[in-house]
Amino acid sequence: MDSVKVGLIGMGTIGAGVAKILLGKADMIARRVGKRVDLVKICDCDTTTDRGVALPPGMMTSDVSEIMNDPDISIVVELVGGTGIAREFVSRALESGKDVVTANKALLANCGEDLFALARKCGRTISFEASVCGGVPVLASLQTSLLANRIESIQAICNGTCNFILSEMESKNAAYADALKEAQRLGFAEANPTLDVDGSDSTQKLAILAQLAFGARPDWKKIPRVGVDVVDAIDFRFAKDLGRTIRLLAIAERTSDGLVLKVTPTLVPENSALAKVTNAFNAIQIVGDSVGPVFYQGWGAGQLPTASAVCSDVIDCALGRARITFDSLRLWSDERESVEIMDANKIKSRAYLRFNVEDRPGVLADISAALGKHGVSIAAMLQHAKANPDDRLASIIIVTYDAPDEALQAALDELAPIPYIGAPVKLAVRD
Amino acid sequence: MDSVKVGLIGMGTIGAGVAKILLGKADMIARRVGKRVDLVKICDCDTTTDRGVALPPGMMTSDVSEIMNDPDISIVVELVGGTGIAREFVSRALESGKDVVTANKALLANCGEDLFALARKCGRTISFEASVCGGVPVLASLQTSLLANRIESIQAICNGTCNFILSEMESKNAAYADALKEAQRLGFAEANPTLDVDGSDSTQKLAILAQLAFGARPDWKKIPRVGVDVVDAIDFRFAKDLGRTIRLLAIAERTSDGLVLKVTPTLVPENSALAKVTNAFNAIQIVGDSVGPVFYQGWGAGQLPTASAVCSDVIDCALGRARITFDSLRLWSDERESVEIMDANKIKSRAYLRFNVEDRPGVLADISAALGKHGVSIAAMLQHAKANPDDRLASIIIVTYDAPDEALQAALDELAPIPYIGAPVKLAVRD
Repeated sequence: MDSVKVGLIGMGTIGAGVAKILLGKADMIARRVGKRVDLVKICDCDTTTDRGVALPPGMMTSDVSEIMNDPDISIVVELVGGTGIAREFVSRALESGKDVVTANKALLANCGEDLFALARKCGRTISFEASVCGGVPVLASLQTSLLANRIESIQAICNGTCNFILSEMESKNAAYADALKEAQRLGFAEANPTLDVDGSDSTQKLAILAQLAFGARPDWKKIPRVGVDVVDAIDFRFAKDLGRTIRLLAIAERTSDGLVLKVTPTLVPENSALAKVTNAFNAIQIVGDSVGPVFYQGWGAGQLPTASAVCSDVIDCALGRARITFDSLRLWSDERESVEIMDANKIKSRAYLRFNVEDRPGVLADISAALGKHGVSIAAMLQHAKANPDDRLASIIIVTYDAPDEALQAALDELAPIPYIGAPVKLAVRD
Repeated sequence: MDSVKVGLIGMGTIGAGVAKILLGKADMIARRVGKRVDLVKICDCDTTTDRGVALPPGMMTSDVSEIMNDPDISIVVELVGGTGIAREFVSRALESGKDVVTANKALLANCGEDLFALARKCGRTISFEASVCGGVPVLASLQTSLLANRIESIQAICNGTCNFILSEMESKNAAYADALKEAQRLGFAEANPTLDVDGSDSTQKLAILAQLAFGARPDWKKIPRVGVDVVDAIDFRFAKDLGRTIRLLAIAERTSDGLVLKVTPTLVPENSALAKVTNAFNAIQIVGDSVGPVFYQGWGAGQLPTASAVCSDVIDCALGRARITFDSLRLWSDERESVEIMDANKIKSRAYLRFNVEDRPGVLADISAALGKHGVSIAAMLQHAKANPDDRLASIIIVTYDAPDEALQAALDELAPIPYIGAPVKLAVRD
């Protein structure tokens, strides 16, 4: 039976999962696809820690050239993460004539264009199913199964850490800080959770989805982004009053004014499929013009779910399917069909605004006057009696009708100098 | 740009959808995949009816040899349906050196083994994404994205007609006959709905899923099957008392005693993802040993969703991906890994039994004695006061613990001669 040899760089959690699958299920995979997919070398700077996987002697190395210079290795799996040394490894693997499989969304969101150009120059391929929604095969769908569709919109819950935090706040009425601590305790959040909770991770994944589904090549740093770190327990109580709950959504939507891209905690109807996505699950709803809505849910992170996606890419490479997909789609190239990305200031949305204000006469008049002056209509307004009458501050919730972001921003700028009205928390509202 | 030529046989609803997509989006698809996929000939016995698709002159024919004998046509789409003439067309296409794309689950469930052997003999391929769950790309996932997983279980809502009927009964407290009529009025059910409502269609789809996920080659006619036609409005009321609703599930589950296969209306928890699948939607939950649970939902039928799946197969054929998948997986062959199918009589399940009994002393004693004698334990029992005290009959609901089907059947056989206890309706219960 033919054998394809694989080198793995980065023996962290996901790397150990990939080793577990490729070594433990080598025979199963060979029987299933008629070809052996043999992991032969693993590189990590730490070669001694026990990762719970039995490795044959000599498989671990700290010298990456043992993979790069081995002509028998045709597939390199990059699981180092980040955009520094990982980028070097990917480039070197491509230049050494190897196909690359990666789970690195930051690398693709930041350097997709360069790396894909390099892969084409080298006649090699890059596969990256695990970079978005972990084990849920959503990139494969966009690259193959949904090809006959003009994609109309994508709504993704693509960060398990954030979804865990929001679910925890929702179900236990927990404060943000407590929900974050619980996520860290359970291993769902990093010690430094910034890139997750500020929405950066979701935005990088959205940039990848935008390329696959719409041919768009956004600078992810310019995509409007609000993280879950602005959400307060009280927002869930107001959301409930509105028949809704809150999920961090990455949104890509084709409109007559261009492609809307944004990441923001969003009030979604409590009976919607996205509202039912709890815990650290990921989910994505794709609407195609022919297929209609398709909904996927599964683990977006974790050792084995992510490794499952990495290994399916490795098998795709070994069988030659990855080459066909890579060559035909011409991702991150000028040859792709593309749509224009809409100016973020012009994006129209329904906003949920929580103002923390001093409880005094005239406040609501100030707010509604400023919104009215800039043409922002109010769809709903909520204010609860204060739990403690001595509290100086009160929360006023305004839900707007569709309004361009720049109009809303102008209204908020107008309110900014008023000392007794604090800068509001701004979330989105969708059906 | 290279061009691949396609012939389509069967210009019904789905056929017209495929023509709409391949003709209307020819340029979009070509731009996207770097190859033209040109529909050049359509064969149907009716060449005159307007299907709402503008066809170039000369494209329609009633003579299938215009497709079979055209050496430029390399892909034949079979959308005739059934196992008679469709089988002939598929065989002839393969023998004429053409790859086949089909949506025909009956054909695959009945003749998969022969047709796949023929395709291998002819060096051609068969693709069939649209045969299960319409536009939802679940077969692609099993054939590619989930390959590194040992599949543990599949639970599928794969018949839109039945799901519409059950949702209608659930939400409107409708009688079965009325829900069926409504489904027919809306075009969700055929004039003769037997193959849908008796579970045959779901069972054929389950046979296909069993082959892809487990390498099993069941005779679909031997898979235990209960249709939605036994469900009564009162079952939804009892299900609600139990915190559940009813969905028609096709189930494949790996156990230590072999592969469980069955199709049956099932009481599922009202908060489960499957319970939230309403209308004519399809959904499938696949559990893999690495990826964990993955859930998909979308339109399982309808012109364009199904055509979307057919067209993705056509593109896969045109690009050569279908060949790799076909050659590597060796479906319906002895070379595949396989699991043993469990004897249906030995399958253990929790049953929901609705007895219609004469309202007289001793009835419950008879039922519980018979169940107890055969080792079937009762987990729950329900009986409501009769709406009308003059009714002669009452409904008694028994929910059992896990019991082998043969033990349950023996208990029911024991009750069969008792004149005041009618043959019960038997559904399944799952969490």
